[in-house]
Amino acid sequence: MINRTIFFTGGVGIADTTTIAGPKEGEGPLAKYFDTILEDDLLGQKSYEKAETKIHIAAIRHMLNKTSMTAKDIDCVFAGDLLDEMIVSSLALREFNIPFIGLYNACASFAEALIVGSSMISGGLMDRVICSTSSHFSTAERQYRFPLELGSQRTPLSQWTVTGAGCTMLEKYQKHKVKITCATLGKVVDYGVKDANDMGAAMLPAAMDTIKTHFRDTQRKPSYYDMIATGDLGDAGGRLLRKLIKEEGIDIDSQHQDCGELIFNREWQDVGQGGSGTACSNIVFNSYIYQQMLEGKIKKLLLVPTGALVSKTASLQGETIPGIAHAICMERV
Amino acid sequence: MINRTIFFTGGVGIADTTTIAGPKEGEGPLAKYFDTILEDDLLGQKSYEKAETKIHIAAIRHMLNKTSMTAKDIDCVFAGDLLDEMIVSSLALREFNIPFIGLYNACASFAEALIVGSSMISGGLMDRVICSTSSHFSTAERQYRFPLELGSQRTPLSQWTVTGAGCTMLEKYQKHKVKITCATLGKVVDYGVKDANDMGAAMLPAAMDTIKTHFRDTQRKPSYYDMIATGDLGDAGGRLLRKLIKEEGIDIDSQHQDCGELIFNREWQDVGQGGSGTACSNIVFNSYIYQQMLEGKIKKLLLVPTGALVSKTASLQGETIPGIAHAICMERV
Repeated sequence: MINRTIFFTGGVGIADTTTIAGPKEGEGPLAKYFDTILEDDLLGQKSYEKAETKIHIAAIRHMLNKTSMTAKDIDCVFAGDLLDEMIVSSLALREFNIPFIGLYNACASFAEALIVGSSMISGGLMDRVICSTSSHFSTAERQYRFPLELGSQRTPLSQWTVTGAGCTMLEKYQKHKVKITCATLGKVVDYGVKDANDMGAAMLPAAMDTIKTHFRDTQRKPSYYDMIATGDLGDAGGRLLRKLIKEEGIDIDSQHQDCGELIFNREWQDVGQGGSGTACSNIVFNSYIYQQMLEGKIKKLLLVPTGALVSKTASLQGETIPGIAHAICMERV
Repeated sequence: MINRTIFFTGGVGIADTTTIAGPKEGEGPLAKYFDTILEDDLLGQKSYEKAETKIHIAAIRHMLNKTSMTAKDIDCVFAGDLLDEMIVSSLALREFNIPFIGLYNACASFAEALIVGSSMISGGLMDRVICSTSSHFSTAERQYRFPLELGSQRTPLSQWTVTGAGCTMLEKYQKHKVKITCATLGKVVDYGVKDANDMGAAMLPAAMDTIKTHFRDTQRKPSYYDMIATGDLGDAGGRLLRKLIKEEGIDIDSQHQDCGELIFNREWQDVGQGGSGTACSNIVFNSYIYQQMLEGKIKKLLLVPTGALVSKTASLQGETIPGIAHAICMERV
C-alpha cells in the first residue's frame, strides 16, 4: 500500500456482470445495456422493502445462472444496501448457501465490495467472489425523507435514488478482458453540509480528496484515464467537482462523467440533479461502462463511488453530513 | 480457502488492544481488565448517540496513544456499530485522517473487521490496521425496542446491549505474542425466530453452523481449543448451543463460554440472559480474553461473534430474524 492506494499485484479479473433496473431507469439512456428492466417496481410484493430484497436476490441468482456456477463455486458475497440494519442484503443472502460479508459506506458500498473482494483475490485468500449492492427509490424515500404517500415537493438539489441491483463477479486474473489493478481508499470528509436533500454537495469534498490522493499516490495524470466516473454527485455536484479540482491544478473536464447523470435523461425525466443510491454506480458500471470496456471504447477507467454518511437520527440531532469516496482503477487488457 | 475457511498464511499478529466499558459493565466481573470504565454513559453529551460516537473516537485515539502511532501509521480502520446507517462509526472516523471501510453484520461486525483486516495483512495489501466496533445500551434500546422513557418491562429472554467500544490493532506477524491463524466465514441462517427480544435463539443456528463448518474444514476437534467463545448468545442461547451441537456429535462443554455471559454477573445485575451488542464480543476479547492469552492461560482460542440480522421495518413486515456468525482462530505463540 502506497499511502492510501492498494495495488492488486496478485491479479484480479472481472468474470462477468449482471444488472436489474427499475422501470424509470429502463426509460433512461442506458436502457439497452441492462440485463433486466422491471415493469413494476413492487414486483407483486406487499412492500417496497420486500421488492428490493427480491431484486437483490434476482441479481445474484442471474449471475450464478449466467456463469453456470453454483453456490459452491463462490467463496463469498460482499454486499450492501441503504436500508437500516442493511436488511435487504441480509435477507437476500439468506437465499444462498454462500458466506456473506456485509459492507456499509452508504452509496459508496459498491466500492467497498469491489475493493475488499479484489483484495481477497489478489492476496490469494479467495478464488471467486460476487460483489452486489441494491437500492430502491421507494424504500430510500420512506427511510431518508418522506413517505411517498405525502406527495412532498422535491427540492431543486435533490437526487433520485436508483431502483436496481447489480453484481460483479471477480476471479483470479486469467485471460479476463478487464482487470482491476489498484484502488485508493477513501476517508471521511465533512465540509459541514446539513441539507439531506443535497447529497451531491455532501459527497463532493470526499470525491475530490480521493481523486487528488489517487493521482498523488500513483503519480498519474487525469489523461491516464479514458473515463473518471464518480458515483452519484449529480449534475450540480459534478460541475462543482470539475471546477474545484481544476482550481487545484487537476483538470478532469475531458474524462469526468457522473453515473447519476448518465443513468437518467434529466431533460424529460423528473429526477432533480440525477440518480443516486447504492445501485447507481453499480448498475451504470455493470452495464454501460463495462460494455464500453469490453468493446475497447474505454481502456482505462477510474470508478469513484461516493457515499453520503447521513442518518435521520444524526440529522435531527443537528449533525452535518460527512461523505466518503473510494476510487477503483480498471483496465482493458 | 478450504470450503468456508481462510488460512492467514502470510502471518497476522495482534499488536495491541484497547477497551472502554460503560458503568454497568464496569460493575461486572471483568471490570479490572478494561482500560477505561465510564462513570456516566452520557459523557455530558446531549444524546446517547453522540455519547456512543465519543466512546468510539476515544477507543481509537487511546489505541494511537498507547502504541505511539499517528494516523499515518495506520493503513485502514475497519469499523462498525449497530445504529441505522452505521452513523456512529462514520462520525467517529471523521475525526481521523485514516481510510475507513465500514462493515455490518450486526453484532458479528467485530468478526468481519478482524477477518477483513487479517486478510489485508496476510495478503500483503496492508501493513497495520485497526478493527473497532461500539454499541450503547441506550442507543440500541431506542432504536430496536422502546425509548427508555417508556419504562417498558423487559422479557425473560431479552439481553442487555453492552455499552462500550474496543479496538484491535493488527500487523504483519513479527514476534507478536498472539497470532490470528484462520477464520471460518459465516452464512446467513434463519430458523424462523420472530421474537426481537430473543436474540440468542435467532443467532444460535448460525453459531452452530459456523462452528461445525470450522471443525469440518480444519479437521480439528473441540479439544484443539482452550476456549470457544461465542459473541452474545446469552445464558439460554449458550446452553442450547452446547446441547444441540452435542446431539450432532460435537461436544464443546469444556471449551465453550459466551462473551455475553462473561461480561455481567447475572445473579445481581439485571441483564436478562446476559450481554449483547457489537461491543460485547469486542470488549470481552480485547480485555479479559486477550489478557488470558498474553499470560498463556488460553493458548488456542476460537472467537465466534454472532449477529442477529434484525430490522424494525422487516419485523413490522412479518419477517423472521436470520443470524450470522464468523469464527476466528487465534493462537498464543
